[in-house]
Amino acid sequence: MFGRLSLNTMTTKRWTLREAVEATAAAGLPAIGLWRDRVAEAGVEQAAKIVLDNGLRVSSLCRGGFLTGIEDAETALDDNRRAIDEAATLSAPELIMVVGGIPDRDLVGARRRLADRLAELVPYAAERDVRLALEPLHPVFCADRAVISTLAQALELAAPHPARTVGVVVDTYHVWWDPALADSVARAGAQGRISSYQICDWLVPMEADPLVSRGMMGDGVIDFGSISALVRDAGYGGDVEVEIFNESVWATDGVEILETMKQRYRELVLPAL
Amino acid sequence: MFGRLSLNTMTTKRWTLREAVEATAAAGLPAIGLWRDRVAEAGVEQAAKIVLDNGLRVSSLCRGGFLTGIEDAETALDDNRRAIDEAATLSAPELIMVVGGIPDRDLVGARRRLADRLAELVPYAAERDVRLALEPLHPVFCADRAVISTLAQALELAAPHPARTVGVVVDTYHVWWDPALADSVARAGAQGRISSYQICDWLVPMEADPLVSRGMMGDGVIDFGSISALVRDAGYGGDVEVEIFNESVWATDGVEILETMKQRYRELVLPAL
Repeated sequence: MFGRLSLNTMTTKRWTLREAVEATAAAGLPAIGLWRDRVAEAGVEQAAKIVLDNGLRVSSLCRGGFLTGIEDAETALDDNRRAIDEAATLSAPELIMVVGGIPDRDLVGARRRLADRLAELVPYAAERDVRLALEPLHPVFCADRAVISTLAQALELAAPHPARTVGVVVDTYHVWWDPALADSVARAGAQGRISSYQICDWLVPMEADPLVSRGMMGDGVIDFGSISALVRDAGYGGDVEVEIFNESVWATDGVEILETMKQRYRELVLPAL
Repeated sequence: MFGRLSLNTMTTKRWTLREAVEATAAAGLPAIGLWRDRVAEAGVEQAAKIVLDNGLRVSSLCRGGFLTGIEDAETALDDNRRAIDEAATLSAPELIMVVGGIPDRDLVGARRRLADRLAELVPYAAERDVRLALEPLHPVFCADRAVISTLAQALELAAPHPARTVGVVVDTYHVWWDPALADSVARAGAQGRISSYQICDWLVPMEADPLVSRGMMGDGVIDFGSISALVRDAGYGGDVEVEIFNESVWATDGVEILETMKQRYRELVLPAL
C-alpha cells in the first residue's frame, strides 16, 4: 500500500538524518527524500550507509539551484557540482533544483542566465547518472526563490537536454492553481521528464510567510485526486514524496506526522494512483 | 505628460469620492478609476456628476465578479448586473471583474461555472456599452479571490465573446512573474482586448497579507519599462491606472501620494509608453 510513499526530511525537520531514516523504515515506507543540511550533518558517506542499512531508497536530494545570481556564477556552479556528487554518492537519481530568484529587476535576464548555467551543469550531472530536476515554484516565490514559475516553462528550459539528464518536478503546492496543468503534466509524462511528484496542501488562509504555509494533505484546498490522476495518466510510476514546511507540523512528534501522512495518502492520493 | 495617468480610488483609500476626484483634477490627471464602495457612498448619479463637473473621465469601475459560488449564482449575477448599470451611469467603459475563488476543492468546476455565468452577463453588459474586463489575479489569490491566474487563461475565457464586450486587464502586480507574459500581452493587443493597464509594484519581502503587499512603482522588483513596452507594442493607448493596496501608502497624505505617483510614472513608465 505504501510502496511509493516517501518522507521528505523537511517534513520532520527536528529529526537527524538517522532518526528520519529509521522512523521511515519502521513506518513501512520504502523511500526518503533528503535535504543537504541533514546529509551534511551526518556526512555524505555515512548518510548513504544509514539509508542503505535501513533498506530505503533515496527518492530525491534537495537541493541544487540558486543559479540566477549576477556575480557569483562560479561559486554557484561549484556548489551545484558538489550537490551532484552528493546525489551520486547517495544513489539519489534526482537532484531537485530550486533555481533562484531575481537579484535585480531583470527577470528575463535572470531566466537567460539560468538557461546558460543549466547547460554548463548538464554534462557533469549526466556523467554521474544524476538527473537535474527543475522545480517550478509557485509564482509567489518568483522574486526570491525561483524564476521557474510554471511546469510549461520548466519543460521549455529542459527541452534542449535529453530527458534522462533534465527532468521536472510536479509539486502540488506549486502547481495546483495552473490553468495549463493538465496539458503540462501530460507533456512532461510523454517526454519522460517527471522526476518527482511531491505533495502537500495549500492552506487557506495562508500563513504570514508563504514558505511555511504548506499543510498536510487534506488540511487545505488542493484536490489531490485530480492532480494525482493527471500524474498517473502521464505514466509516472515513481515515488510520491511528502514535503511540508509548516511550524505546527514541525512542532508535532515525527512518528505522529508519519502516521497522519500515511493515512492521508491512503485516503486522498492512493485511490487515484 | 500625464494625459493617460489615472488614480484608482483604492490608492487613496481614506478619501471620499469627491475628495479623490477633486484632488485628481487638481493634480492635472485626466482620469480616475472608481471602486463601487466610494460610488455607493456618494450615490451613483451624484458620483457621475462629480466626475463630470471636474472634467475627468472614468478609466474603470472596480469591480464585478465573484461568480464562482455554488449556491448563490442568482445573487451574484444580480449584483453584477447592478455593477454594469453603475458603470453605464458613470460612463465607465470597463467593469473590472475579479471573478472569485474556489468554494470547495474543485478548481476545474469553479472555472467552468465562471465561463457559464460570464456568458449570461455578456448580453446585458453589451446592451449598456460596458465591457467586462477579466482580471487575472496573481496565483497567490487563486483559492480565495480569482480562479483566473494568467493572461492566457483570461484570453481563453474571453474568446467566445466579441472583443468589444469582454476584455482583459494587465495589472503588473498580478502578471509580472508570468513566463508567457510577452506572448499573452501581444495576443491581447492583437485581439483588441486590453481593457486596462494597472500598475503597482511587488514588494520584497512581502507583507504578511499579500492583498496589501502592493507598493508604489519603484519600491519593489517589477521592471515597469519592460512591461509597459509590451503593452505599448500591443497597441494599447488607454489609461494607466495606479492601484495600490498598502497600509503605509494608505497612512500617507493623499496629495503626497498623487505627487509620488506622478513622479514615478514619469521616471519608470512614461519613457516606455
